Amino acid sequence: MAGSGALETLVEALRRLPGVGQKSAQRMAYHLLQHDRLGAGVLAQALERAVASVQHCQRCHTFSEAPVCPVCRDTGRDRRQLCVVESPADQAALERTGSYHGYYYVLMGRISPIDGQGPEQLRADGLLARALDGEVEEVILATSFTAEGEATSHVLGESLRARGLKVTRLARGVPAGSELEYVDLSTIAHALVDRR
Amino acid sequence: MAGSGALETLVEALRRLPGVGQKSAQRMAYHLLQHDRLGAGVLAQALERAVASVQHCQRCHTFSEAPVCPVCRDTGRDRRQLCVVESPADQAALERTGSYHGYYYVLMGRISPIDGQGPEQLRADGLLARALDGEVEEVILATSFTAEGEATSHVLGESLRARGLKVTRLARGVPAGSELEYVDLSTIAHALVDRR
Repeated sequence: MAGSGALETLVEALRRLPGVGQKSAQRMAYHLLQHDRLGAGVLAQALERAVASVQHCQRCHTFSEAPVCPVCRDTGRDRRQLCVVESPADQAALERTGSYHGYYYVLMGRISPIDGQGPEQLRADGLLARALDGEVEEVILATSFTAEGEATSHVLGESLRARGLKVTRLARGVPAGSELEYVDLSTIAHALVDRR
Repeated sequence: MAGSGALETLVEALRRLPGVGQKSAQRMAYHLLQHDRLGAGVLAQALERAVASVQHCQRCHTFSEAPVCPVCRDTGRDRRQLCVVESPADQAALERTGSYHGYYYVLMGRISPIDGQGPEQLRADGLLARALDGEVEEVILATSFTAEGEATSHVLGESLRARGLKVTRLARGVPAGSELEYVDLSTIAHALVDRR
């Protein structure tokens, strides 16, 4: 292995992937070179294509190859609702439920002081501009129910409400299929408060 | 996310990496596009360079950019010893000990019937040709002490001994720094048998 510059460079480059350390990177490099050289080429091309063509949707800020993403281009959705999510993955989860028909705004992050992500980094002004287009009546905050997600939701909710918009938050409660006995107490307490 | 062909292609390509499932691949793709586009380009180039330039050393079969790897080119090593390892990572571990000065033969695999890796797939003939160069006096089998590693060692040892070579195996025993109380019984039993 000593002196094999290309191999070492590849291991170093693989370590840039989140969650990949030295051992995993080495294993990945060996695997590609030994068993899947075709895959290495495919991955290289996919990376280059994605970097070249994936930008942010001008309306909802999600990843998109077109200036405006397919969801924002869909004129059949409900213009009165705007759902704020942290990531394209969260948006995809909501879409899979089939029970939301409005538009989205994707924050591409959340407030996380530990990572140096304050309210400024969230580009909340983009959300405000989007929400104040005159057609949106309700902003649904669907950030995560973690400390960062809650903080994000709180900060965004304040400035949206200050501009006269109706702001709602996804309901907290007992997950479908759960037996109460095994649900954590904080969730049960929230479900009690939010009972309907 | 829907319809973003380049993003989906990238997620699919990342899933070819060992140990990377749908969720990890998605996280990696989002991370690269959102926070490290430079890294994505670096990785693409490293992959292409490695696929184009990394081949197998003609003598020891490890990964090498040159026809013969730097270790095999090093004329200062002991030609009488040949150490058989499963992978370049294992070779690197032995090198780091600083206590072996012979040459290596890297199997690039091991016998693993579950994965369809029989003795034929191991290219044992390459090892035999290398070991029978007239200078090698001792072949040290340094495959793993797992079921597959032991099977590999057994099969290779048989054919090497049949050709009159001295064959040894790394010692099994109590790891450095261990308290006997916490060492597994099979290891202690082996350490007893191999006591010196």
